[in-house]
Amino acid sequence: MAGEELILLNFWPSMFGARVKIALAEKGLRYEEKEEDLPYKSRLLRKMNPIYKKVPVLIHNGKPVCESLIIVEYIDEVWSDRVPLLPSHPYERAQARFWADYIDKKIYRAANIISWHSKYEVEEGKKELMEALKQLEGVLGDKAYFGGEVFGFVDIALMGFYMCFHTYETCANFSIEVECPKLMEWGKRCFKRETVSKSLAGPNKICDLVMSSRKKFGLD
Amino acid sequence: MAGEELILLNFWPSMFGARVKIALAEKGLRYEEKEEDLPYKSRLLRKMNPIYKKVPVLIHNGKPVCESLIIVEYIDEVWSDRVPLLPSHPYERAQARFWADYIDKKIYRAANIISWHSKYEVEEGKKELMEALKQLEGVLGDKAYFGGEVFGFVDIALMGFYMCFHTYETCANFSIEVECPKLMEWGKRCFKRETVSKSLAGPNKICDLVMSSRKKFGLD
Repeated sequence: MAGEELILLNFWPSMFGARVKIALAEKGLRYEEKEEDLPYKSRLLRKMNPIYKKVPVLIHNGKPVCESLIIVEYIDEVWSDRVPLLPSHPYERAQARFWADYIDKKIYRAANIISWHSKYEVEEGKKELMEALKQLEGVLGDKAYFGGEVFGFVDIALMGFYMCFHTYETCANFSIEVECPKLMEWGKRCFKRETVSKSLAGPNKICDLVMSSRKKFGLD
Repeated sequence: MAGEELILLNFWPSMFGARVKIALAEKGLRYEEKEEDLPYKSRLLRKMNPIYKKVPVLIHNGKPVCESLIIVEYIDEVWSDRVPLLPSHPYERAQARFWADYIDKKIYRAANIISWHSKYEVEEGKKELMEALKQLEGVLGDKAYFGGEVFGFVDIALMGFYMCFHTYETCANFSIEVECPKLMEWGKRCFKRETVSKSLAGPNKICDLVMSSRKKFGLD
């Protein structure tokens, strides 16, 4: 669609912002990315997401859409003439939504404990993370992507966290690959897509940020 | 569609189960309701929702769909030939999803504190609940329903909680109507729909259950 204005309010290490970037790239859409300087929140961010004041926000022709999974569905629906992100069958769509929601509930909680709680709680976070990842490893099975042969919604939902796997492993001193080899293969497969690799922040850069912040806040 | 088999695993006071019942009723669908005897979880429930083992689960021709908002979207998509539950425009759909998700995040948390925490935490729950309800009162404004003139997704998402308003008021000794008169009018308006009134449990019955459980667990 000509004359469309797309602005993404983002913060480069955001796993939720990464999802939106992947979805926009999959649809071949051009957009302007405005980097927030968190924890300071710009006037534009506060205006466009007054409820949560969080990134990412996609501003489409002046109108904001918030919450990453909702944004990805929005992108899929507006540009439905291009490569679909959600499956077409209602049952498969419900399954995709279920697992994306599972990632938000389980992986986010565990990742947050590992990254931002004291070292005494890291073991608990590691246990929760591995339980959830093993569950996802089972769902993936021998498929190329969560939806089968086609990259889509659940892959996008998890890729945001995949870019932080190195950080979790460093914080909690363990290897995800040992228990979830298929999931790591899946991550590498997804990363070969230019739409993904160009949308994710570097794992080492994120890890450095988290580790130096942990030090600053006296968490280790 | 002839020959469809629909089974709903539910527990009568569930605000999430009520959503699914309203959606099924709006679409004019017949289904078998199987009442769970929580906290005991039936073999069928554990089989059909192995991840969370929670109601509601909609079993459609033997295949389970879990998580109430996902189920409501599923029902809307499968029976798309009947009265729509979500708006047709992608932006309005994104807004509807945003507010339904807000209800799950904010109202659920506050309602849970009021209903199941000790009396010393009830004030905190009341404050959170009223903040969220006032926000929703603002979103509703002077509209008949959250989506405008037509009953839909956000109304369904909130009606599950509306049937518990009397319980919250009793637990925390306050009146929602004083600060949210429009929301209470909206609730009464929705309740006039047979699809809603026949799907909700009686407010007094829920209140009695919660109050007697609070007494049993020594919360008051």
